[in-house]
Amino acid sequence: VEPLVIGVLGGMGPEATVDLLQRIVLHTPAEDDADHLHILVDNNPRLPSRIRHLSGTGPSPAPALVAMARGLVSAGADFLAMPCNTAHFYYAEIQAAVPVPVLHIAEEAVAALRAARPEVRRVGLLGTTPTVSQGLYTGPLRRNGMSPLLPCSADQETVMGVIAAVKGGHKGTRERQALLGVARTLIASGAEALIAACTELPLILRRPRLGVPYLDATDTLARAAVRRAFSGETILAARAGD
Amino acid sequence: VEPLVIGVLGGMGPEATVDLLQRIVLHTPAEDDADHLHILVDNNPRLPSRIRHLSGTGPSPAPALVAMARGLVSAGADFLAMPCNTAHFYYAEIQAAVPVPVLHIAEEAVAALRAARPEVRRVGLLGTTPTVSQGLYTGPLRRNGMSPLLPCSADQETVMGVIAAVKGGHKGTRERQALLGVARTLIASGAEALIAACTELPLILRRPRLGVPYLDATDTLARAAVRRAFSGETILAARAGD
Repeated sequence: VEPLVIGVLGGMGPEATVDLLQRIVLHTPAEDDADHLHILVDNNPRLPSRIRHLSGTGPSPAPALVAMARGLVSAGADFLAMPCNTAHFYYAEIQAAVPVPVLHIAEEAVAALRAARPEVRRVGLLGTTPTVSQGLYTGPLRRNGMSPLLPCSADQETVMGVIAAVKGGHKGTRERQALLGVARTLIASGAEALIAACTELPLILRRPRLGVPYLDATDTLARAAVRRAFSGETILAARAGD
Repeated sequence: VEPLVIGVLGGMGPEATVDLLQRIVLHTPAEDDADHLHILVDNNPRLPSRIRHLSGTGPSPAPALVAMARGLVSAGADFLAMPCNTAHFYYAEIQAAVPVPVLHIAEEAVAALRAARPEVRRVGLLGTTPTVSQGLYTGPLRRNGMSPLLPCSADQETVMGVIAAVKGGHKGTRERQALLGVARTLIASGAEALIAACTELPLILRRPRLGVPYLDATDTLARAAVRRAFSGETILAARAGD
């Protein structure tokens, strides 16, 4: 049986997309090229800003995302993945527009956390303001018996500054320390685990020693894509957007 | 003016494709997502082996490569790039099948070497046996006043072993030392510069201190793609396959 073809809605940002692809390659058991997976990628960074739309100051990227999804399916993708958490606010529109399953980055991250650490209840979220405050992870966490813990406003501004810096190619000690500071404050406030719920963040914080589990949603999405590709399941996942 | 859309014929191998994408992102001047380039990628590792076809023991990958190229152009690619040197034996067939330019990895590497080091005459080649012995670089080098220097048979077998190891995910000191040994022998034999003419090799040998310039054809291809995307030149390049 041939594995399924993965379609990637990329470019949000481009380096995070490369990061996802790298991890798909890494997580694929392979001894030669032909053991690897067929992946179609539309890396389109020139979409309307998700952040600006969600904060009411710009047009929606949904039509462009739907067009990318349809293009990938036309080109042969058997299921889709999107290495951008914030873009998942348009998940329901994308999933409704294509006849193949779209993996959900938050569902996959939360399922992986649940499987690895069933005792965890309070989960600190590091991500964009819409992602953490408009509930992208709330549904998946609650359905799995967990609850989200968010940074305070000042810390959330710090996280947004770090994300903007990483998107601009600034990935130094300053950005890393700022993010670690927010992570430690979340832990001090009771977070028993952290999720890097923005695909820019693992680019500067890979495996921090924080004393609690740190899940990286890019990595759990990559693992889910590899599993799905080899499982051959083409049935539409029964997963609603929150 | 919108930059051109880059189409990448990838998967040969997948990690080399990720490496090219990473370098395109790195070489793009950008402060936010929207400054980056739109890239369409068909990462298809499940093509017939180029090596087996060129050594007369397998079917040609050309029909599949042509189909990939046409698919990328249909999806919107304005020009194409292929991060696999050996696949350039099918360059003329691919270029003849599409109405957009296809960058040529060897032409770009040799042009970059010429520009950086006009005094160099003898160039050591590290690549697959077909690439180094069947003349992929010979035409571009000679047209630029340079000549190729090849490893002896035993050393060439070492290089092939290293490439197979890297494709299997083995990227340790052993592979690196073996490749460095071949590089040093080429230099001792008179090579004034080296070209990593297989996209798997920069994955283990990035910036070696060898006393002579070491050009990495993945990097020069990435730079050429970024230049082309921003230059807006859609005219078919006057470049014949050798």
